[in-house]
Amino acid sequence: MAKQITLYTAKVCPWAHRTELALKESKLPYTRYEIDLSNKPEWYAPKVNKASKVPAIAYGGPDASPENPSPESVKIAESGVLLEFFADLDRENRLLPKDPVLRAKARFFIETATPAFTGALFGAVSGTKDVEALFDGIDVIQGLLPVKGYAIGEWSIADAAITPFFARTEVSLKNDIGKFEAGKGKAAWAKIETEPRFSRFRQYFSDLKNRDSYKETFDEEFVKNNYAKRFARDV
Amino acid sequence: MAKQITLYTAKVCPWAHRTELALKESKLPYTRYEIDLSNKPEWYAPKVNKASKVPAIAYGGPDASPENPSPESVKIAESGVLLEFFADLDRENRLLPKDPVLRAKARFFIETATPAFTGALFGAVSGTKDVEALFDGIDVIQGLLPVKGYAIGEWSIADAAITPFFARTEVSLKNDIGKFEAGKGKAAWAKIETEPRFSRFRQYFSDLKNRDSYKETFDEEFVKNNYAKRFARDV
Repeated sequence: MAKQITLYTAKVCPWAHRTELALKESKLPYTRYEIDLSNKPEWYAPKVNKASKVPAIAYGGPDASPENPSPESVKIAESGVLLEFFADLDRENRLLPKDPVLRAKARFFIETATPAFTGALFGAVSGTKDVEALFDGIDVIQGLLPVKGYAIGEWSIADAAITPFFARTEVSLKNDIGKFEAGKGKAAWAKIETEPRFSRFRQYFSDLKNRDSYKETFDEEFVKNNYAKRFARDV
Repeated sequence: MAKQITLYTAKVCPWAHRTELALKESKLPYTRYEIDLSNKPEWYAPKVNKASKVPAIAYGGPDASPENPSPESVKIAESGVLLEFFADLDRENRLLPKDPVLRAKARFFIETATPAFTGALFGAVSGTKDVEALFDGIDVIQGLLPVKGYAIGEWSIADAAITPFFARTEVSLKNDIGKFEAGKGKAAWAKIETEPRFSRFRQYFSDLKNRDSYKETFDEEFVKNNYAKRFARDV
């Protein structure tokens, strides 16, 4: 019988979101436990993840409540590690294909797309980079994508790894939330939504959003409210 | 029959060294091709790795010379991607065990140890951090290691991932090569070699150096001469 998985996560966190997308796609059963990142429970660091970050899991062990996980369960942290772990547990290759070359392509996509895109997104919302840096981030993604389909054709953990950052880009730009000049976010999003240059990205993001895993794991309103507080424009 | 592997590498590069260690341990046959990083061949970027970095491989395809790899061979870059790729090819689990939990531990070691240790090493040799930052890097490693054995007990790609940085730390400190105050490197190495605080690290590094894979892939004299030029103290 499959061992239990308790996922410690937070709706706002894109790194945690990666692992929820992968778990939904894997069909592995799991217990979801929301950690309030602005007010973490005292037991979380000593009992689950000494780095005190999400995502993390408790895996296996006897029955226990998420607030008091068994010392016999294995604790695993870091989103990249967890994506591979769920792929290893998934005997039907829903998360990673069997072919070593395709697996390498998925991992190359994750290693290359993640820093390029997250650097642009966090730079834009925090006001340390121009919003237009996101256009370059999108170009990197488009340069890695095949003509159609997902990062390596079929859906894989490569897509789980990047989707959360697209979702948060849309929230920031569409709602003009971020430490950039007022109006710049909406203007950038209008370009992304209409310019031929971004057509491959639009198709890709649309394909991702159409999946149940996206609909079941992304709480747009929650993230919007959180971003509005955290990245409010200085006035 | 196993497909051919041509590895494009450079003796001086720790990231490339990772992949050579893993290939030696895997027993997979491969052709080694040294790239002079200070004078890269013109064909390298267009034919092998458009990012123009090592390591990279050409995998499969018809017989071809390393200088003119077949377009039919698959080109794969990035050391982390290649470590996993070789582990996927290795049917005898010499590089990664089968157990998903141990595989996750190996990946967590790589994700955690690499930035902590490389940040300290590159900071020390380039003069942007105190040499003593390496002591903290060693503490991170020691905090991740089991009581004895390798990163996850048996040797794995986790060890391949970190070994090259230990090797270059020894070259730098023992020979006092780096943009730090003269004598500071030797003094730090003397502490690492003698203080009880570093005993677990000493045992681990000694175990790593005793493996054939280390002896066959690390050219200490070559790296020493290269570092002496690149990281010469300003006078």
